[in-house]
Amino acid sequence: MTTLPDSCNPFPENVDQVFTHCRMATMAKGNYGIVENAALAVSGKKISWIGPMDALPETPGTKKVTDCRNQWILPGFVDCHTHLIWAGSRANEFEMRLAGASYADIAKAGGGIFSTVTATRAADEGTLFDLASRRMAHFLTQGITTVEIKSGYGLDLDTELKMLAVADRLQQTCPQNVQATFLGAHALPPEFSDRADDYIQEIIKVMLPAVKDQGIATAVDAFCETIAFSREQTRQVFEKAIDLGFDVKLHAEQLSDSSGTALAAEMGALSCDHLEYLSTNGAEKMAEHGTVAVLLPGAFYYLKETKVPPVDVFRRLRIPMAVATDLNPGSSPVHSMIPVLNMACLLFGLTCEQALAGATIHGANALGLADRKGSLEPGKDADFVIWDVASPADLCYLTGITPVKMVVIEGRTEHGSV
Amino acid sequence: MTTLPDSCNPFPENVDQVFTHCRMATMAKGNYGIVENAALAVSGKKISWIGPMDALPETPGTKKVTDCRNQWILPGFVDCHTHLIWAGSRANEFEMRLAGASYADIAKAGGGIFSTVTATRAADEGTLFDLASRRMAHFLTQGITTVEIKSGYGLDLDTELKMLAVADRLQQTCPQNVQATFLGAHALPPEFSDRADDYIQEIIKVMLPAVKDQGIATAVDAFCETIAFSREQTRQVFEKAIDLGFDVKLHAEQLSDSSGTALAAEMGALSCDHLEYLSTNGAEKMAEHGTVAVLLPGAFYYLKETKVPPVDVFRRLRIPMAVATDLNPGSSPVHSMIPVLNMACLLFGLTCEQALAGATIHGANALGLADRKGSLEPGKDADFVIWDVASPADLCYLTGITPVKMVVIEGRTEHGSV
Repeated sequence: MTTLPDSCNPFPENVDQVFTHCRMATMAKGNYGIVENAALAVSGKKISWIGPMDALPETPGTKKVTDCRNQWILPGFVDCHTHLIWAGSRANEFEMRLAGASYADIAKAGGGIFSTVTATRAADEGTLFDLASRRMAHFLTQGITTVEIKSGYGLDLDTELKMLAVADRLQQTCPQNVQATFLGAHALPPEFSDRADDYIQEIIKVMLPAVKDQGIATAVDAFCETIAFSREQTRQVFEKAIDLGFDVKLHAEQLSDSSGTALAAEMGALSCDHLEYLSTNGAEKMAEHGTVAVLLPGAFYYLKETKVPPVDVFRRLRIPMAVATDLNPGSSPVHSMIPVLNMACLLFGLTCEQALAGATIHGANALGLADRKGSLEPGKDADFVIWDVASPADLCYLTGITPVKMVVIEGRTEHGSV
Repeated sequence: MTTLPDSCNPFPENVDQVFTHCRMATMAKGNYGIVENAALAVSGKKISWIGPMDALPETPGTKKVTDCRNQWILPGFVDCHTHLIWAGSRANEFEMRLAGASYADIAKAGGGIFSTVTATRAADEGTLFDLASRRMAHFLTQGITTVEIKSGYGLDLDTELKMLAVADRLQQTCPQNVQATFLGAHALPPEFSDRADDYIQEIIKVMLPAVKDQGIATAVDAFCETIAFSREQTRQVFEKAIDLGFDVKLHAEQLSDSSGTALAAEMGALSCDHLEYLSTNGAEKMAEHGTVAVLLPGAFYYLKETKVPPVDVFRRLRIPMAVATDLNPGSSPVHSMIPVLNMACLLFGLTCEQALAGATIHGANALGLADRKGSLEPGKDADFVIWDVASPADLCYLTGITPVKMVVIEGRTEHGSV
């Protein structure tokens, strides 16, 4: 795969569409991979050529030509961590937290996530699908073209499969690429109170094989934390998951240092997510094993966390940093990547370029999709967004506005116009 | 003016429109002023009746009837503090601040606001109008129906008048109500370097009379701060402004305690704005003189301020708290009230109800418009928004989505549909 526009690249034969007069932040290399006065060709679902305007051959009549009028094009956002499927509302819990209750307090009191579990169990598949579809439709307007979606509000076989069936229907019906993750080990369900090991066995012996049979998830996630599952319980889930051929990833070191990250990295996890309390040792294990750090500033912000993830350590060890919405009704009701970019800069100290790389190429890395998604390069999927901004940094700087002009996914215009 | 739906209110004769099956947060009294299963009648530009559905007379054919399908209606947002008219971009300064430069550092270095002053002076009125119109159009989609707009990026007579002329054109062409404020004392222009008293004389002798002559502003604002103008300079500007019949208001105690608030309150200011460093003595003066506290969490957030305004003191002294976007290209590029509501709750500790009252009735109070704007009550302007939310608190809880369905201003549907 070539990484930069190059007039030496021959213009391909089978071009279906040409986007002309583009300014591109390809995110394929340093300085945002900026290319100005450029054109981009699409063949079928793929980017087939990127080059300077003056290398563009005279366009025959069969090609669709879109004049981008010098607007900025960036890769579509890859949101690599969401809990997008749920029923019920948690606005009341937001008011509780304003009054001083902590996430752990609420979890221990049987509130919080369990109110979502109850509502999600009670909702039929059609209702869940309608709710989630609306969220996907909004995500499209926000320039999000790939979406990871976790189960984990069922915590029983039927509801977990129902959630993953909804994710599968979203993949069939929404324009975005959907990556489904099984998160049975999200919290201990009330039926297994004080019997966490039994629930882990249920996951290993019943849920994981059933999810595998249905072929409706590609990855397995877990929440390794004092209020959730231990390192040893996580290890057991991951061993079985890996044995069945799933990718693994982990909610790790969000509220305390449980050393889940080192374990996950050693087991070949795609990513470890949250990481506010990560130790340097944990980070070193990530670097050693090529694990992506997924930063979730929405949850940090909503939970009024004060300890930030060790961004300087990630930089020093060259650990790729992804950023994601963590969309969920409890700790991150964040329905767009734009505020996430802003919070990644202002709260975590990322540069604008690092934040944008986190929402594109490193989001794709966190999902194991970097061969197809996350940057503008010939051979990759034609997933991109045309933005009405003066510079890519505007996408990190602005609040309360999403200046999307047009969203293209696998070569099809799915939202807006130039 | 009655404050609550009351089936004893006779249904008026001259009704043009009826909105049926409403859930309303009227913001007219406690608990959001919630009224369920209600209807609202509009006569011309005014709300003429609010009452229970079963008190609604059978509707004759001449009235327009809109079935709100049990969706929530709130007063349109009153954004009582913006700097909406400017040219140029400050995204680069955002990147500078990420690297550690402070607002004061940037101001002292001649950067920051002066880059906006330079760009705004250079822009012709048509260009400024186009830029500002787009911001107003976006504000409309965010449910903002009244907008205060300050000058203050000219700092010379011609540019200050040009900005106020743009505000006047916005009032003529945009559906929102516009309140223009003269803010010549925003910063010391480079032409008056080390001659702040001379610039104050220029404001008093030249600018204020010219603004008065043209009748294009109703209020006068100033920035009382170590990096701007002293308490004594502020007093001189306010004395002249009051003498000419302007309302006054103040940017006060944002970066330090300069005791501008006590002065402004004693001089009858409508509001004092920012207030992070306000002393209890200053707050007591506000309470004594009925001054509104305008909280601007966007600037607090963008400037990484750590000292929060004394919200508990405002509560104890029953000082009305407004919240506003402070939309400006430097310290608060915040283009919607939704993130402001969220930050007011999470960063400043307001309840959801206080935040919503701040964006509606107390925003109107801060502009001296509470007789016409800011709550749903018979006799007030028919400015309201229909929201696709489960509860009013959702508007504070959500990030990255603005669930507006329809915006009505003075009885006219200006955006969306039910």
